[in-house]
Amino acid sequence: MKKGFFITLEGGEACGKSTQVRMLKEYLDKQVNHDDFLFVREPGGTPLTEEIRKLLLNYEIDKPLPMTELLLFCAARVEDVYKQILPALSQGKVVIADRFYDSTIAYQGMARGIMSSKDILSLTKKIIGGLTPNLTFYLKISPEEAFKRKSKMSEGMDRIEKEGLLFHQKVKEGYDFISNLEKDRFYILDATKSPQEIFEEIKKVLNQKIPEYFKDDLSEEKY
Amino acid sequence: MKKGFFITLEGGEACGKSTQVRMLKEYLDKQVNHDDFLFVREPGGTPLTEEIRKLLLNYEIDKPLPMTELLLFCAARVEDVYKQILPALSQGKVVIADRFYDSTIAYQGMARGIMSSKDILSLTKKIIGGLTPNLTFYLKISPEEAFKRKSKMSEGMDRIEKEGLLFHQKVKEGYDFISNLEKDRFYILDATKSPQEIFEEIKKVLNQKIPEYFKDDLSEEKY
Repeated sequence: MKKGFFITLEGGEACGKSTQVRMLKEYLDKQVNHDDFLFVREPGGTPLTEEIRKLLLNYEIDKPLPMTELLLFCAARVEDVYKQILPALSQGKVVIADRFYDSTIAYQGMARGIMSSKDILSLTKKIIGGLTPNLTFYLKISPEEAFKRKSKMSEGMDRIEKEGLLFHQKVKEGYDFISNLEKDRFYILDATKSPQEIFEEIKKVLNQKIPEYFKDDLSEEKY
Repeated sequence: MKKGFFITLEGGEACGKSTQVRMLKEYLDKQVNHDDFLFVREPGGTPLTEEIRKLLLNYEIDKPLPMTELLLFCAARVEDVYKQILPALSQGKVVIADRFYDSTIAYQGMARGIMSSKDILSLTKKIIGGLTPNLTFYLKISPEEAFKRKSKMSEGMDRIEKEGLLFHQKVKEGYDFISNLEKDRFYILDATKSPQEIFEEIKKVLNQKIPEYFKDDLSEEKY
Protein backbone atom coordinates (compact mmCIF):
# COMPACT_ATOMS: atom_id res chain seq x y z
CA MET A 1 0.00 0.00 0.00
CA LYS A 2 1.13 3.54 -0.67
CA LYS A 3 2.42 5.45 2.32
CA GLY A 4 0.36 8.62 2.14
CA PHE A 5 1.80 12.05 1.44
CA PHE A 6 0.82 15.43 2.81
CA ILE A 7 1.18 18.49 0.56
CA THR A 8 0.34 22.07 1.44
CA LEU A 9 0.08 25.16 -0.76
CA GLU A 10 1.01 28.45 0.81
CA GLY A 11 1.55 32.06 -0.12
CA GLY A 12 0.59 35.65 0.62
CA GLU A 13 -2.24 37.65 -0.87
CA ALA A 14 -2.59 37.64 -4.66
CA CYS A 15 0.21 35.09 -5.13
CA GLY A 16 -1.92 33.00 -7.49
CA LYS A 17 -2.38 30.09 -5.09
CA SER A 18 -6.08 29.57 -5.84
CA THR A 19 -5.30 29.27 -9.55
CA GLN A 20 -2.68 26.60 -8.85
CA VAL A 21 -5.04 24.68 -6.55
CA ARG A 22 -7.67 24.70 -9.29
CA MET A 23 -5.18 23.60 -12.00
CA LEU A 24 -3.83 20.87 -9.75
CA LYS A 25 -7.30 19.63 -8.96
CA GLU A 26 -8.21 19.48 -12.66
CA TYR A 27 -4.96 17.65 -13.40
CA LEU A 28 -5.32 15.11 -10.61
CA ASP A 29 -9.00 14.49 -11.36
CA LYS A 30 -7.85 13.15 -14.75
CA GLN A 31 -5.58 10.54 -13.16
CA VAL A 32 -6.82 6.94 -13.16
CA ASN A 33 -6.23 6.88 -9.43
CA HIS A 34 -7.90 10.23 -8.74
CA ASP A 35 -9.40 8.75 -5.57
CA ASP A 36 -5.87 8.71 -4.16
CA PHE A 37 -5.96 12.50 -3.88
CA LEU A 38 -7.89 14.45 -1.27
CA PHE A 39 -8.16 18.23 -1.37
CA VAL A 40 -8.90 20.06 1.87
CA ARG A 41 -9.29 23.69 2.67
CA GLU A 42 -8.91 25.40 6.00
CA PRO A 43 -11.19 25.77 7.77
CA GLY A 44 -13.91 23.55 6.39
CA GLY A 45 -14.91 20.18 5.03
CA THR A 46 -16.68 18.79 8.07
CA PRO A 47 -19.99 19.95 9.58
CA LEU A 48 -18.30 21.43 12.65
CA THR A 49 -15.48 23.18 10.77
CA GLU A 50 -17.97 24.67 8.31
CA GLU A 51 -19.78 26.15 11.33
CA ILE A 52 -16.46 27.51 12.61
CA ARG A 53 -15.75 28.88 9.10
CA LYS A 54 -19.03 30.81 9.25
CA LEU A 55 -18.02 32.37 12.58
CA LEU A 56 -14.61 33.30 11.16
CA LEU A 57 -15.63 34.65 7.79
CA ASN A 58 -19.30 35.57 7.77
CA TYR A 59 -20.24 36.52 11.29
CA GLU A 60 -20.81 40.25 11.06
CA ILE A 61 -22.93 40.55 14.22
CA ASP A 62 -20.01 40.16 16.61
CA LYS A 63 -16.63 39.87 14.87
CA PRO A 64 -14.04 37.66 16.58
CA LEU A 65 -11.02 39.42 18.05
CA PRO A 66 -7.69 38.54 16.38
CA MET A 67 -6.75 36.17 19.22
CA THR A 68 -10.17 34.49 19.04
CA GLU A 69 -9.65 34.16 15.30
CA LEU A 70 -6.33 32.39 15.92
CA LEU A 71 -7.94 29.96 18.36
CA LEU A 72 -10.90 29.27 16.07
CA PHE A 73 -8.49 28.51 13.21
CA CYS A 74 -6.60 26.19 15.56
CA ALA A 75 -9.83 24.49 16.68
CA ALA A 76 -10.85 23.89 13.06
CA ARG A 77 -7.36 22.60 12.25
CA VAL A 78 -7.58 19.96 14.97
CA GLU A 79 -10.86 18.73 13.47
CA ASP A 80 -9.41 18.83 9.92
CA VAL A 81 -6.34 16.90 10.96
CA TYR A 82 -7.99 14.16 13.00
CA LYS A 83 -11.20 13.75 11.00
CA GLN A 84 -9.94 14.29 7.43
CA ILE A 85 -6.17 14.49 6.92
CA LEU A 86 -4.82 11.71 9.15
CA PRO A 87 -7.49 9.15 8.15
CA ALA A 88 -6.76 9.84 4.43
CA LEU A 89 -2.98 9.62 4.96
CA SER A 90 -3.39 6.34 6.81
CA GLN A 91 -5.28 5.00 3.77
CA GLY A 92 -2.24 5.89 1.65
CA LYS A 93 -3.78 8.96 0.05
CA VAL A 94 -2.11 12.18 -1.02
CA VAL A 95 -3.69 15.04 0.91
CA ILE A 96 -3.43 18.50 -0.61
CA ALA A 97 -4.26 21.35 1.75
CA ASP A 98 -4.98 24.86 0.59
CA ARG A 99 -3.19 26.59 3.52
CA PHE A 100 -2.09 24.99 6.78
CA TYR A 101 -0.19 26.19 9.82
CA ASP A 102 2.29 28.29 7.84
CA SER A 103 -0.62 30.60 7.05
CA THR A 104 -1.40 30.93 10.75
CA ILE A 105 2.21 31.94 11.40
CA ALA A 106 2.21 34.42 8.51
CA TYR A 107 -1.22 35.94 9.09
CA GLN A 108 -2.15 35.61 12.76
CA GLY A 109 1.46 35.60 13.97
CA MET A 110 3.45 38.05 11.91
CA ALA A 111 0.82 40.19 10.24
CA ARG A 112 -1.56 40.58 13.19
CA GLY A 113 1.18 40.22 15.80
CA ILE A 114 -1.00 38.39 18.32
CA MET A 115 1.61 35.82 19.31
CA SER A 116 5.19 35.28 18.28
CA SER A 117 5.74 32.94 15.33
CA LYS A 118 7.63 30.61 17.65
CA ASP A 119 4.70 30.44 20.08
CA ILE A 120 2.18 29.87 17.29
CA LEU A 121 4.31 27.10 15.83
CA SER A 122 4.65 25.46 19.22
CA LEU A 123 0.88 25.74 19.86
CA THR A 124 -0.10 24.44 16.46
CA LYS A 125 2.32 21.48 16.66
CA LYS A 126 1.06 20.61 20.11
CA ILE A 127 -2.61 20.55 19.16
CA ILE A 128 -2.13 18.41 16.05
CA GLY A 129 0.36 15.98 17.55
CA GLY A 130 3.31 17.30 15.58
CA LEU A 131 1.91 16.60 12.09
CA THR A 132 4.13 18.33 9.51
CA PRO A 133 3.54 18.49 5.75
CA ASN A 134 5.83 16.33 3.62
CA LEU A 135 6.00 19.01 0.96
CA THR A 136 4.98 22.65 0.86
CA PHE A 137 4.66 24.66 -2.33
CA TYR A 138 5.25 28.24 -1.37
CA LEU A 139 4.32 30.81 -3.98
CA LYS A 140 6.69 33.59 -3.08
CA ILE A 141 5.77 37.12 -3.99
CA SER A 142 7.40 40.38 -3.00
CA PRO A 143 5.31 42.57 -0.68
CA GLU A 144 5.37 45.30 -3.37
CA GLU A 145 4.08 42.94 -6.06
CA ALA A 146 1.41 41.55 -3.70
CA PHE A 147 0.36 45.05 -2.85
CA LYS A 148 0.34 46.07 -6.53
CA ARG A 149 -1.76 43.09 -7.55
CA LYS A 150 -4.10 43.53 -4.61
CA SER A 151 -4.68 47.20 -5.07
CA LYS A 152 -4.43 47.01 -8.88
CA MET A 153 -2.40 50.18 -8.85
CA SER A 154 1.31 50.95 -8.52
CA GLU A 155 1.73 54.50 -7.39
CA GLY A 156 0.27 57.30 -5.31
CA MET A 157 -0.06 55.36 -2.06
CA ASP A 158 -1.71 57.14 0.84
CA ARG A 159 -1.22 56.30 4.53
CA ILE A 160 -3.76 53.50 4.57
CA GLU A 161 -2.38 51.98 1.39
CA LYS A 162 1.07 52.05 2.93
CA GLU A 163 -0.30 50.14 5.91
CA GLY A 164 -1.47 47.65 3.32
CA LEU A 165 2.09 47.32 2.10
CA LEU A 166 3.31 46.77 5.66
CA PHE A 167 0.77 43.98 6.04
CA HIS A 168 2.14 42.21 2.94
CA GLN A 169 5.67 42.67 4.29
CA LYS A 170 4.71 41.05 7.59
CA VAL A 171 3.04 38.14 5.81
CA LYS A 172 6.23 37.59 3.83
CA GLU A 173 8.32 37.77 7.01
CA GLY A 174 6.13 35.06 8.51
CA TYR A 175 6.67 32.82 5.51
CA ASP A 176 10.40 33.58 5.55
CA PHE A 177 10.53 32.53 9.20
CA ILE A 178 8.86 29.16 8.73
CA SER A 179 10.44 28.38 5.35
CA ASN A 180 13.87 28.87 6.91
CA LEU A 181 13.04 26.87 10.00
CA GLU A 182 11.53 23.87 8.18
CA LYS A 183 13.32 24.35 4.87
CA ASP A 184 13.48 20.65 3.97
CA ARG A 185 9.79 20.51 3.16
CA PHE A 186 9.64 23.83 1.29
CA TYR A 187 9.65 24.14 -2.47
CA ILE A 188 9.67 27.81 -3.33
CA LEU A 189 7.98 28.96 -6.52
CA ASP A 190 8.46 32.33 -8.14
CA ALA A 191 4.94 33.77 -8.16
CA THR A 192 5.83 36.31 -10.85
CA LYS A 193 6.03 33.53 -13.46
CA SER A 194 2.97 32.70 -15.52
CA PRO A 195 0.39 30.33 -13.98
CA GLN A 196 1.24 27.68 -16.63
CA GLU A 197 4.99 27.88 -15.94
CA ILE A 198 4.39 27.57 -12.20
CA PHE A 199 2.06 24.66 -12.73
CA GLU A 200 4.58 22.79 -14.90
CA GLU A 201 7.10 23.15 -12.09
CA ILE A 202 4.61 21.79 -9.54
CA LYS A 203 3.87 18.77 -11.76
CA LYS A 204 7.58 18.09 -12.24
CA VAL A 205 8.19 18.17 -8.48
CA LEU A 206 5.24 15.88 -7.83
CA ASN A 207 6.44 13.36 -10.39
CA GLN A 208 9.83 13.36 -8.70
CA LYS A 209 8.61 13.22 -5.12
CA ILE A 210 5.71 10.79 -5.41
CA PRO A 211 6.18 8.92 -8.72
CA GLU A 212 4.21 5.94 -7.42
CA TYR A 213 1.02 8.00 -7.61
CA PHE A 214 1.60 8.89 -11.28
CA LYS A 215 2.67 5.62 -12.85
CA ASP A 216 -0.79 4.99 -14.34
CA ASP A 217 -1.00 8.57 -15.53
CA LEU A 218 -3.48 8.83 -18.37
CA SER A 219 -3.58 12.57 -18.55
CA GLU A 220 -2.79 14.37 -21.80
CA GLU A 221 0.66 15.34 -20.57
CA LYS A 222 1.95 11.79 -20.87
CA TYR A 223 0.31 10.74 -24.13
CA MET B 1 -13.85 55.33 41.67
CA LYS B 2 -13.84 51.71 42.80
CA LYS B 3 -11.03 49.60 41.44
CA GLY B 4 -12.91 46.62 40.06
CA PHE B 5 -12.65 43.12 41.46
CA PHE B 6 -12.71 39.79 39.69
CA ILE B 7 -14.24 36.80 41.49
CA THR B 8 -14.56 33.27 40.15
CA LEU B 9 -16.52 30.29 41.47
CA GLU B 10 -15.04 26.89 40.87
CA GLY B 11 -15.58 23.27 41.81
CA GLY B 12 -16.09 19.77 40.52
CA GLU B 13 -19.33 18.06 39.59
CA ALA B 14 -22.17 18.25 42.11
CA CYS B 15 -20.27 20.56 44.46
CA GLY B 16 -23.24 22.90 44.76
CA LYS B 17 -21.67 25.78 42.81
CA SER B 18 -24.82 26.62 40.84
CA THR B 19 -26.78 26.97 44.08
CA GLN B 20 -24.17 29.40 45.43
CA VAL B 21 -24.13 31.42 42.20
CA ARG B 22 -27.92 31.72 42.42
CA MET B 23 -27.88 32.71 46.11
CA LEU B 24 -25.11 35.23 45.47
CA LYS B 25 -27.00 36.74 42.57
CA GLU B 26 -30.17 37.08 44.64
CA TYR B 27 -28.18 38.65 47.47
CA LEU B 28 -26.30 41.13 45.26
CA ASP B 29 -29.43 42.08 43.33
CA LYS B 30 -30.78 43.45 46.63
CA GLN B 31 -27.82 45.79 47.08
CA VAL B 32 -28.43 49.46 46.37
CA ASN B 33 -25.44 49.36 44.03
CA HIS B 34 -26.48 46.13 42.27
CA ASP B 35 -25.26 47.60 38.99
CA ASP B 36 -21.75 47.31 40.38
CA PHE B 37 -21.92 43.52 39.99
CA LEU B 38 -21.70 41.64 36.72
CA PHE B 39 -22.29 37.89 36.49
CA VAL B 40 -20.76 36.02 33.56
CA ARG B 41 -20.80 32.37 32.62
CA GLU B 42 -18.37 30.53 30.37
CA PRO B 43 -18.83 30.29 27.51
CA GLY B 44 -21.57 32.78 26.74
CA GLY B 45 -22.94 36.26 27.16
CA THR B 46 -22.01 37.71 23.77
CA PRO B 47 -23.48 36.76 20.37
CA LEU B 48 -20.26 35.03 19.25
CA THR B 49 -19.67 33.13 22.49
CA GLU B 50 -23.29 31.95 22.52
CA GLU B 51 -22.64 30.51 19.04
CA ILE B 52 -19.48 28.84 20.35
CA ARG B 53 -21.48 27.55 23.33
CA LYS B 54 -23.91 25.89 20.92
CA LEU B 55 -21.02 24.13 19.14
CA LEU B 56 -19.61 22.98 22.48
CA LEU B 57 -22.77 21.83 24.20
CA ASN B 58 -25.51 21.21 21.66
CA TYR B 59 -23.85 20.23 18.42
CA GLU B 60 -24.73 16.56 18.08
CA ILE B 61 -24.10 16.31 14.30
CA ASP B 62 -20.32 16.41 14.57
CA LYS B 63 -19.06 16.48 18.14
CA PRO B 64 -15.83 18.41 18.76
CA LEU B 65 -12.78 16.35 19.71
CA PRO B 66 -11.47 16.99 23.24
CA MET B 67 -8.63 19.18 21.90
CA THR B 68 -11.08 21.14 19.75
CA GLU B 69 -13.26 21.56 22.82
CA LEU B 70 -10.29 23.02 24.70
CA LEU B 71 -9.58 25.52 21.90
CA LEU B 72 -13.23 26.52 21.57
CA PHE B 73 -13.38 27.16 25.33
CA CYS B 74 -10.22 29.24 24.99
CA ALA B 75 -11.63 31.18 22.01
CA ALA B 76 -14.80 31.96 23.96
CA ARG B 77 -12.74 32.99 26.99
CA VAL B 78 -10.81 35.55 24.95
CA GLU B 79 -14.11 37.10 23.84
CA ASP B 80 -15.51 37.00 27.40
CA VAL B 81 -12.41 38.64 28.83
CA TYR B 82 -11.98 41.44 26.29
CA LYS B 83 -15.64 42.18 25.55
CA GLN B 84 -17.21 41.65 28.99
CA ILE B 85 -14.85 41.16 31.92
CA LEU B 86 -12.11 43.75 31.34
CA PRO B 87 -14.52 46.55 30.32
CA ALA B 88 -16.59 45.93 33.47
CA LEU B 89 -13.48 45.83 35.70
CA SER B 90 -12.23 49.06 34.19
CA GLN B 91 -15.57 50.64 35.12
CA GLY B 92 -14.91 49.60 38.71
CA LYS B 93 -17.37 46.71 38.75
CA VAL B 94 -17.17 43.41 40.55
CA VAL B 95 -17.24 40.63 37.99
CA ILE B 96 -18.37 37.20 39.17
CA ALA B 97 -17.61 34.36 36.79
CA ASP B 98 -19.23 30.96 37.04
CA ARG B 99 -16.07 29.00 36.09
CA PHE B 100 -12.89 30.37 34.53
CA TYR B 101 -9.53 28.90 33.57
CA ASP B 102 -9.27 26.69 36.66
CA SER B 103 -12.12 24.65 35.15
CA THR B 104 -10.17 24.25 31.92
CA ILE B 105 -7.20 22.93 33.89
CA ALA B 106 -9.39 20.56 35.92
CA TYR B 107 -11.61 19.32 33.09
CA GLN B 108 -9.71 19.59 29.80
CA GLY B 109 -6.29 19.26 31.40
CA MET B 110 -6.46 16.73 34.19
CA ALA B 111 -9.69 14.87 33.52
CA ARG B 112 -9.40 14.57 29.74
CA GLY B 113 -5.61 14.62 29.75
CA ILE B 114 -5.29 16.53 26.46
CA MET B 115 -2.52 18.84 27.60
CA SER B 116 -0.60 19.10 30.86
CA SER B 117 -2.05 21.49 33.43
CA LYS B 118 1.11 23.57 33.12
CA ASP B 119 0.67 23.92 29.33
CA ILE B 120 -3.01 24.79 29.65
CA LEU B 121 -2.24 27.41 32.28
CA SER B 122 0.48 28.90 30.08
CA LEU B 123 -1.82 28.92 27.03
CA THR B 124 -4.76 30.41 28.86
CA LYS B 125 -2.63 33.14 30.48
CA LYS B 126 -1.09 34.02 27.12
CA ILE B 127 -4.40 34.41 25.31
CA ILE B 128 -6.00 36.60 27.97
CA GLY B 129 -2.97 38.76 28.64
CA GLY B 130 -2.29 37.29 32.07
CA LEU B 131 -5.64 38.20 33.66
CA THR B 132 -5.95 36.39 37.01
CA PRO B 133 -8.98 36.42 39.32
CA ASN B 134 -8.58 38.44 42.50
CA LEU B 135 -10.54 35.86 44.48
CA THR B 136 -11.66 32.33 43.74
CA PHE B 137 -14.23 30.47 45.78
CA TYR B 138 -13.45 26.82 45.38
CA LEU B 139 -16.14 24.44 46.57
CA LYS B 140 -14.05 21.45 47.46
CA ILE B 141 -15.63 18.04 47.38
CA SER B 142 -14.07 14.60 47.69
CA PRO B 143 -14.18 12.52 44.49
CA GLU B 144 -16.19 9.90 46.39
CA GLU B 145 -18.76 12.46 47.54
CA ALA B 146 -18.96 13.98 44.04
CA PHE B 147 -19.46 10.55 42.59
CA LYS B 148 -22.05 9.66 45.23
CA ARG B 149 -24.02 12.86 44.63
CA LYS B 150 -23.72 12.49 40.88
CA SER B 151 -24.75 8.89 40.67
CA LYS B 152 -27.19 9.18 43.61
CA MET B 153 -25.95 5.83 44.90
CA SER B 154 -23.11 4.76 47.12
CA GLU B 155 -22.40 1.12 46.48
CA GLY B 156 -22.27 -1.62 43.88
CA MET B 157 -20.09 0.25 41.36
CA ASP B 158 -19.43 -1.45 38.04
CA ARG B 159 -16.49 -0.78 35.71
CA ILE B 160 -18.04 2.26 34.08
CA GLU B 161 -19.08 3.70 37.40
CA LYS B 162 -15.53 3.28 38.62
CA GLU B 163 -14.32 5.21 35.61
CA GLY B 164 -16.75 7.88 36.77
CA LEU B 165 -14.99 7.94 40.11
CA LEU B 166 -11.61 8.26 38.39
CA PHE B 167 -12.95 11.25 36.44
CA HIS B 168 -13.95 13.00 39.68
CA GLN B 169 -10.52 12.21 41.12
CA LYS B 170 -8.80 13.79 38.11
CA VAL B 171 -10.98 16.90 38.34
CA LYS B 172 -10.01 17.24 41.99
CA GLU B 173 -6.32 16.78 41.11
CA GLY B 174 -6.63 19.61 38.59
CA TYR B 175 -8.12 21.91 41.20
CA ASP B 176 -5.46 20.83 43.73
CA PHE B 177 -2.77 21.74 41.19
CA ILE B 178 -4.00 25.25 40.50
CA SER B 179 -5.13 26.02 44.06
CA ASN B 180 -1.63 25.17 45.27
CA LEU B 181 0.07 27.14 42.52
CA GLU B 182 -2.00 30.31 42.89
CA LYS B 183 -3.02 29.81 46.51
CA ASP B 184 -3.22 33.50 47.40
CA ARG B 185 -6.41 33.98 45.45
CA PHE B 186 -8.10 30.76 46.59
CA TYR B 187 -10.70 30.59 49.32
CA ILE B 188 -11.57 26.95 49.85
CA LEU B 189 -15.08 26.08 50.98
CA ASP B 190 -16.14 22.73 52.39
CA ALA B 191 -18.81 21.58 49.93
CA THR B 192 -20.24 19.08 52.44
CA LYS B 193 -21.62 21.93 54.57
CA SER B 194 -25.21 23.11 53.99
CA PRO B 195 -25.80 25.63 51.18
CA GLN B 196 -26.77 28.27 53.75
CA GLU B 197 -23.62 27.74 55.82
CA ILE B 198 -21.45 27.98 52.69
CA PHE B 199 -23.24 31.09 51.55
CA GLU B 200 -22.75 32.80 54.94
CA GLU B 201 -19.03 32.13 54.61
CA ILE B 202 -18.98 33.61 51.08
CA LYS B 203 -20.76 36.75 52.27
CA LYS B 204 -18.36 37.13 55.18
CA VAL B 205 -15.35 36.87 52.88
CA LEU B 206 -16.83 39.39 50.43
CA ASN B 207 -17.52 41.88 53.22
CA GLN B 208 -13.91 41.54 54.32
CA LYS B 209 -12.32 41.66 50.86
CA ILE B 210 -14.40 44.33 49.18
CA PRO B 211 -16.18 46.27 51.96
CA GLU B 212 -16.44 49.37 49.74
CA TYR B 213 -19.06 47.57 47.64
CA PHE B 214 -21.22 46.80 50.67
CA LYS B 215 -21.21 50.01 52.64
CA ASP B 216 -24.68 50.96 51.41
CA ASP B 217 -25.96 47.49 52.02
CA LEU B 218 -29.76 47.54 52.39
CA SER B 219 -30.26 43.80 52.35
CA GLU B 220 -32.02 42.04 55.23
CA GLU B 221 -28.73 40.82 56.66
CA LYS B 222 -27.78 44.29 57.83
CA TYR B 223 -31.13 45.54 59.13
